[in-house]
Amino acid sequence: MAIIGVGLIGGSLARAIRQAQACDEVIGCGRNVAHLEKAVSLGVIDRFETDPAEAVRGADMIVVAVPLGAMADMFNRLASHISADATITDVGSAKACVISDARKHLGSCFSAFVPGHPIAGTEKNGVEASFAELYKDHCVILTPVKETDQTALQNVRALWTYAGAEVVEMDPLHHDEVLAATSHLPHMLAYTLVGTLARLDESREVFRYAAGGFRDFTRIASSDPVMWRDICLANGQAILEVLKKYTNDLEGLSRAIERHDGEYILKIFAQAKQRRDQFLNKD
Amino acid sequence: MAIIGVGLIGGSLARAIRQAQACDEVIGCGRNVAHLEKAVSLGVIDRFETDPAEAVRGADMIVVAVPLGAMADMFNRLASHISADATITDVGSAKACVISDARKHLGSCFSAFVPGHPIAGTEKNGVEASFAELYKDHCVILTPVKETDQTALQNVRALWTYAGAEVVEMDPLHHDEVLAATSHLPHMLAYTLVGTLARLDESREVFRYAAGGFRDFTRIASSDPVMWRDICLANGQAILEVLKKYTNDLEGLSRAIERHDGEYILKIFAQAKQRRDQFLNKD
Repeated sequence: MAIIGVGLIGGSLARAIRQAQACDEVIGCGRNVAHLEKAVSLGVIDRFETDPAEAVRGADMIVVAVPLGAMADMFNRLASHISADATITDVGSAKACVISDARKHLGSCFSAFVPGHPIAGTEKNGVEASFAELYKDHCVILTPVKETDQTALQNVRALWTYAGAEVVEMDPLHHDEVLAATSHLPHMLAYTLVGTLARLDESREVFRYAAGGFRDFTRIASSDPVMWRDICLANGQAILEVLKKYTNDLEGLSRAIERHDGEYILKIFAQAKQRRDQFLNKD
Repeated sequence: MAIIGVGLIGGSLARAIRQAQACDEVIGCGRNVAHLEKAVSLGVIDRFETDPAEAVRGADMIVVAVPLGAMADMFNRLASHISADATITDVGSAKACVISDARKHLGSCFSAFVPGHPIAGTEKNGVEASFAELYKDHCVILTPVKETDQTALQNVRALWTYAGAEVVEMDPLHHDEVLAATSHLPHMLAYTLVGTLARLDESREVFRYAAGGFRDFTRIASSDPVMWRDICLANGQAILEVLKKYTNDLEGLSRAIERHDGEYILKIFAQAKQRRDQFLNKD
């Protein structure tokens, strides 16, 4: 197995697969040698290459775990070096754009490409933050298209099952809409909140008097800015659509506060609490 | 000590004071007898009264821990029953409105009233969720006014110090602005997010594919809707002001996504991450 990009996501998958003894050798690939040496010393990968073409030589399974903005270029560099019987997958947070990049750059290997997205992660990043259990009981969404080879699809299902994940399939555009709502929008809101508060004059005091709720609420604003910029660019349309709905709802609350409408406010808070308790009552 | 309202906040203070042995007797007061009996059986309070006038008879320290919307009425009911040397305080999340209610209804006792707000809590509520350590190393903001008696102020400082809190003083309006930003606004955003997602057609799926980040982000949407309605009504002006700033910033991000401006997006995400890591790097 070759993992291109040994960060939190790629590194955690490498650890899980090694721990499950599901693979003879895990080869990591990245640009930073010190970083890759660290991955070897932490036992995340068996060995590394800095040239993607070398990393995928003879690999049966290729996992591309680079930021969304680097996918097209990486597919382009890999295309002519992929073995005929290899399976390729990715871990990108938006799928339509990755599929488009893969279709354009993978050439005849495109049918061996299975678009994937593990719904797991933390606000931390880098190989030091990786751990084998990251995907355990988490959902991995695969978004195969009509060209996708069924054997490749089964291989990627097996990969994630070894890592302890529950695999589901979904239409790519539906994936992008759902993730825009549950993941991308909350990140936009959290980054913006920290920004707004930082710009207030009393910012030092503002953060001083923030309690646990604020810490939880803004945890995702500590996520990798480059990764999230790429997500905004890759899934912009779906994000803008759900952001518009959200802004309208926020405007409705704002008007209710203005007109001192306690009944309306109570109704929407009570409904939200009920939904949140109903769907996420396990924490 | 009389605690009017034995929920998470009042109950946790009662537990802390009993544990510190800082008081001969803690008397709880509320409307629900079963609830108060539970508080006695859990060891939160020594005994209870359902009539506030009875509860405060002979009490040296009176803590009013009812929702903001019930403060005025409670002050009105208590005023003529408060001992001459008693100290009164509250735990309301907005201070200007409570001070106004107290000034209007406490009459000659107003100088013995020390407005207070412990910056602690969880999304849970009720006496079952109370625990003695809730305030340990947390901030309690007192917002005395010109009439406030210095001895009363020292008594309330001592009360919270027994509970393990760090006591600070602040101007009431400044308190209301700071809390609107760090606490009230995040709650508005979280309630609204859950509401927006619940109204999406694919709502069941939306919540199904929500991961840990979403769970953390929306935890505060499980907070008590009545309490938060009251906060919206009591601190509406400060909330609307910071909400306006926030909406402008969100609109700026939205426009950047529209015009595919990766540079702008990266800048604001990176700044937010830096601020969040800088101020809240302990979790």
